[in-house]
Amino acid sequence: MGRAHSNAWRQAGRFFASPLTPVLHTVAARDADSLAKFAAQWGWAQHSTRWQTLVEDPDVGLLDIGTPNDVHEAPAVDALAAGKHVACEKPLAHTLDAARSMRDAAKRAARKGVHSFVWFNYRRCPAVGLAYQLLREGKLGTVHEVRARYLQAWGGADTPRVWRFQKSRAGSGAHGDLNAHMIDMARFLLGDEIAEVHGAVARTVHPQRPDPSNPRKTLRSDVDDICSFLASFAGGATASFEASRVATGELNDNGLAVYGSDGALRFDFEDMNVLWFHEGASGGRTSGWKRILATSPDHHPWVDAWWPDAHVLGYEHGFANMAADILRVLSGRDPIVPLPDFADAWETQRVLEAALRAAKDRKAVRLSAVR
Amino acid sequence: MGRAHSNAWRQAGRFFASPLTPVLHTVAARDADSLAKFAAQWGWAQHSTRWQTLVEDPDVGLLDIGTPNDVHEAPAVDALAAGKHVACEKPLAHTLDAARSMRDAAKRAARKGVHSFVWFNYRRCPAVGLAYQLLREGKLGTVHEVRARYLQAWGGADTPRVWRFQKSRAGSGAHGDLNAHMIDMARFLLGDEIAEVHGAVARTVHPQRPDPSNPRKTLRSDVDDICSFLASFAGGATASFEASRVATGELNDNGLAVYGSDGALRFDFEDMNVLWFHEGASGGRTSGWKRILATSPDHHPWVDAWWPDAHVLGYEHGFANMAADILRVLSGRDPIVPLPDFADAWETQRVLEAALRAAKDRKAVRLSAVR
Amino acid sequence: MGRAHSNAWRQAGRFFASPLTPVLHTVAARDADSLAKFAAQWGWAQHSTRWQTLVEDPDVGLLDIGTPNDVHEAPAVDALAAGKHVACEKPLAHTLDAARSMRDAAKRAARKGVHSFVWFNYRRCPAVGLAYQLLREGKLGTVHEVRARYLQAWGGADTPRVWRFQKSRAGSGAHGDLNAHMIDMARFLLGDEIAEVHGAVARTVHPQRPDPSNPRKTLRSDVDDICSFLASFAGGATASFEASRVATGELNDNGLAVYGSDGALRFDFEDMNVLWFHEGASGGRTSGWKRILATSPDHHPWVDAWWPDAHVLGYEHGFANMAADILRVLSGRDPIVPLPDFADAWETQRVLEAALRAAKDRKAVRLSAVR
Amino acid sequence: MGRAHSNAWRQAGRFFASPLTPVLHTVAARDADSLAKFAAQWGWAQHSTRWQTLVEDPDVGLLDIGTPNDVHEAPAVDALAAGKHVACEKPLAHTLDAARSMRDAAKRAARKGVHSFVWFNYRRCPAVGLAYQLLREGKLGTVHEVRARYLQAWGGADTPRVWRFQKSRAGSGAHGDLNAHMIDMARFLLGDEIAEVHGAVARTVHPQRPDPSNPRKTLRSDVDDICSFLASFAGGATASFEASRVATGELNDNGLAVYGSDGALRFDFEDMNVLWFHEGASGGRTSGWKRILATSPDHHPWVDAWWPDAHVLGYEHGFANMAADILRVLSGRDPIVPLPDFADAWETQRVLEAALRAAKDRKAVRLSAVR
Repeated sequence: MGRAHSNAWRQAGRFFASPLTPVLHTVAARDADSLAKFAAQWGWAQHSTRWQTLVEDPDVGLLDIGTPNDVHEAPAVDALAAGKHVACEKPLAHTLDAARSMRDAAKRAARKGVHSFVWFNYRRCPAVGLAYQLLREGKLGTVHEVRARYLQAWGGADTPRVWRFQKSRAGSGAHGDLNAHMIDMARFLLGDEIAEVHGAVARTVHPQRPDPSNPRKTLRSDVDDICSFLASFAGGATASFEASRVATGELNDNGLAVYGSDGALRFDFEDMNVLWFHEGASGGRTSGWKRILATSPDHHPWVDAWWPDAHVLGYEHGFANMAADILRVLSGRDPIVPLPDFADAWETQRVLEAALRAAKDRKAVRLSAVR
Repeated sequence: MGRAHSNAWRQAGRFFASPLTPVLHTVAARDADSLAKFAAQWGWAQHSTRWQTLVEDPDVGLLDIGTPNDVHEAPAVDALAAGKHVACEKPLAHTLDAARSMRDAAKRAARKGVHSFVWFNYRRCPAVGLAYQLLREGKLGTVHEVRARYLQAWGGADTPRVWRFQKSRAGSGAHGDLNAHMIDMARFLLGDEIAEVHGAVARTVHPQRPDPSNPRKTLRSDVDDICSFLASFAGGATASFEASRVATGELNDNGLAVYGSDGALRFDFEDMNVLWFHEGASGGRTSGWKRILATSPDHHPWVDAWWPDAHVLGYEHGFANMAADILRVLSGRDPIVPLPDFADAWETQRVLEAALRAAKDRKAVRLSAVR
Repeated sequence: MGRAHSNAWRQAGRFFASPLTPVLHTVAARDADSLAKFAAQWGWAQHSTRWQTLVEDPDVGLLDIGTPNDVHEAPAVDALAAGKHVACEKPLAHTLDAARSMRDAAKRAARKGVHSFVWFNYRRCPAVGLAYQLLREGKLGTVHEVRARYLQAWGGADTPRVWRFQKSRAGSGAHGDLNAHMIDMARFLLGDEIAEVHGAVARTVHPQRPDPSNPRKTLRSDVDDICSFLASFAGGATASFEASRVATGELNDNGLAVYGSDGALRFDFEDMNVLWFHEGASGGRTSGWKRILATSPDHHPWVDAWWPDAHVLGYEHGFANMAADILRVLSGRDPIVPLPDFADAWETQRVLEAALRAAKDRKAVRLSAVR
Repeated sequence: MGRAHSNAWRQAGRFFASPLTPVLHTVAARDADSLAKFAAQWGWAQHSTRWQTLVEDPDVGLLDIGTPNDVHEAPAVDALAAGKHVACEKPLAHTLDAARSMRDAAKRAARKGVHSFVWFNYRRCPAVGLAYQLLREGKLGTVHEVRARYLQAWGGADTPRVWRFQKSRAGSGAHGDLNAHMIDMARFLLGDEIAEVHGAVARTVHPQRPDPSNPRKTLRSDVDDICSFLASFAGGATASFEASRVATGELNDNGLAVYGSDGALRFDFEDMNVLWFHEGASGGRTSGWKRILATSPDHHPWVDAWWPDAHVLGYEHGFANMAADILRVLSGRDPIVPLPDFADAWETQRVLEAALRAAKDRKAVRLSAVR
């Protein structure tokens, strides 16, 4: 994540015209040795093993947090209190309490013009930006149904028990890591909030994993490797979410389908430059799914900053597009499409929590009960 | 369905070598006028407006039931009692009680060598037959995750309130019509039974639909247009099911994915000749999803009866393949892959019921409670 | 081919309403033993080892020829002279001379109301029928470019030297077998004739093949395993054609793309229910290729005779659709889309010949020189 | 191109470990105004309106040429003579004479350890790099057939007559621009040279185009908008090439298929992270095309420098990968896969020339005649 963020700030400065030029001032991490090398490689002017260094430095204007989930709250709250903008990795936090505290800190800071952001980078694939536009323009009519999945395969039995498999550090497993993206994407695209979780299942397929520091030992993993849940939006749309780290063959299969009364959309990250659009209801002689290569500089969000048509973009461009939008906001302009702040990410966190409760209690959970 | 079944019996007789030749003896339906024409068109020797005619006729060896769901039980139970084999459309019945009665009738008849069958035709797409073989051979290792969907788009607001939208006749909507297929397919492929439904949602998107006999009036629809549920198999696999009749753009999107520790499979009916297979765990230089065109006469179930390699099959061939397998069973041989009988379809019916209860009661339902 | 044609006539009679009902009167072939069994299996009333039997029988109204290419001319010319309609397999003949003689015989017979047909079955995939309609309606504007391929993989080194690998019997190899289909399809869709072949290559990859009657011996194959050529249509469109029997992995990869000033189309037989359509020129926010599932009974050619939407068709339906269109013509109606007669197939044969000459003489050939 | 190259050098320095760090020393272009802005935006230390400035500057070690085709020869020859490495855009030159002169200059310079490179960037998509490895390892057996296309749609009637439509500046149209890439890719992958062009067609679809400086006027375009040719490799493989700028709907459809006796490969740039691989001959129960997502850091060329598995790359990464490989060569190491130098690009230029002659003279051309 350090590389993805460093690159995003650098590239946003080159490819997007902005009155603000990002300066890579200080990078902080725990391991002093690798840190110096990282700072040199990516052009950070200074480095520190304490994040507090950044909060205390009057020259730092924005703190970009890419630490494990349990190390989001402290730096974010302190930085916001110190009047610094904060861009935080997703999910917002490892617990609902921590997320609430961050939301409140952001609310207080906002009164002083301080901004918060959360790196839900997939909003900024051009194809997803186009989906957002089409939905906002009513091209799908009333949305009836949403299907979201985020499947990965890297969490097999041999995968070491790193922090992502510890509940105390990560909060949850595939759920917070992957479903978080899809909850955000669904909320963003529909412009609606989830009202109820109808049911959920969270399963730890591999409860013992190799110890990263001693592969002959195993350590306990207490997070979900698979987590699925069903939900309804306030506006009535039915939704399903499925996250997995043990879906053999699915490397980064982040996909969403939205079905409305007058049209439908599909997105799959592994073919991230493409948006599938069904315009109008089914039927008719030339009715069908259209494969839109969302790479035309004149027509699709952010693309004019990059290459000619069909000279496709990749994973990292979502981050660079987001960095560019953050710079737009910090210079007083609107982002190309809405940026998620802590208040917004708090809503996603509530859905994550509701699904975990539904799985644990084996029953439906209304979002009004999760505060 | 009358056309699909008539064609299946005719084609099975031509394309498959069998000691038994099906004779289209008598066709029964309520409307005398269209019936005569239908019988002539499809080569039925006789026709009748009473199904009882067939049960009473000593020359009839097998009753093939394609009537609405609430007219499955009576003819099936009577025919089985009269010692006639029965092949019934899916789902088995419109209520759990009717299904139980049919299961029991089949059990009694089975003692006298009388067979029951249920037209879960998608088992007999060659690609699904190949999936069955690969799973039985352990090519996927332990199955962790199943995702099934069956989405159609024909149930928009203008679709008339035919019997499929009446709970008293159909039992349920998209659920019994579409999820039934996918529950059967998942049980068939995994060779395992669902142990728990974790949660479900069933929604009637259009509660009023045009009266088929007077389009200016509307009638009440009391079945689900969308129904999704989450489940676990006894062996541990997590599963999701999603059925819809309002999924704009998805015409007959019957799809299943199975993820195991050592491989994975995907099937989509709209490209029904293809099975996607991920052999082995992810990783490695040439790891990937393989597109198998399951049309090679030497290698794929049923295909040797049809055409040269890659001269693709269609929807109707699933029915003809099933008719051929029924003829195999009736002549004392094994079917190419297992045929679902009433006892088997009863298990699918229990899952349908469990999901409806979970949706209604907003909580998880153990299958042991549905008998 | 005997099975495909027998099935086509039977199915056309069942599925399509027609004043004419085809009767399977007499089947002729050389091998008496297999013939009796074939006739019984497919419901032919009589059988004979001499095709002359059919020409002489006053009860026979149409002769359907599915013999090797060098046995097209004699039965066709005799049957036409005897006032019988003829439906002949493609390509029209094994030599230009034989084709010319057949064309002339058909011309003479036509004056007496006798019809000739050639089994270019792929014209009658519903997706190709839709392509025809869109082109005729001008939806593509001026056609600039056509790319056609028909690739198969069955002709590896181990494939026996059957008649298809003998120039004296087949005329050519992949060229006459596969390019013939694509030349017909391109001419049909564009409604235009090829004016020049710019260059060609025909290569015999395996000049020795196993003797079918003694696999330890080999026999000489003197036809092309790969044949490609470039051409221009009279109207200006540039075209490329590629046929192969050694294209590993391509089982029946019959595909065509047409690019016009105002739109474009793509068809691939392995996914034969689909037509890809690019409506309008490139550019614009939602511009893209639309995947049309040409299976809607209300909207696509021939489909109303078959199943509900998205209950996909297969290879054999092209033949049944053609049989149905022949019955339409014989009963005085128009076919759904034009049927190729011998005069039409003669034009395809001229292109086949021009390409062979271009390959042999290593230079461009104008079609005006091939008569 | 200036942006793509500038970015490539910057990113190669960040993402790839190298003993050499590229310094963006001086950028040269004709328009002084836009040049200053460009230099500032991309971090070039100096800028000049004369390329000679770079050749004369002793601090410049490598000249990167991205000018129109007719401005390749002079700077390349001068820079090489001055002992500077040169990386030149493709095609090598606008005429065979210019290309020969560049090849000779590079040969002379090579004796003094000076390197030449040509930006055939598509070699460095990871999927293409994997294809190269598989072919070199013999995974395809003997290659029988190659099909290459590079189709774009931007050259409609309204596209202004920029230098790319002037023969005197560009040499040819779609041919030199697009076929050049595919000739290079085919030669690279097969490790073989084209021996004969069997035929070709080059067509100017729009001979008059709007004047870029006065849209109400038109200017003559004298280059091909479509150019196709057929060829054979010395080793026997048959090949087809097709380039177009008027292929409506095909935005950057750069694709190649290679069929061998023991396997096959397909690549399509619009889905550039994917390589399709058919391992082994056709046939067998699980035979099929495998979709390899060539994004795994452990297994695919260049990927370890970028992101985790399936975090897909885009167009610009081909350039950055090439810049990294140039740095490897300049620091005495081998490139990941071979880099094309001027001698190599000269072979591609000969094929371009042979095809143009074949089109003009309407006959086959042996490559031995093009020197």
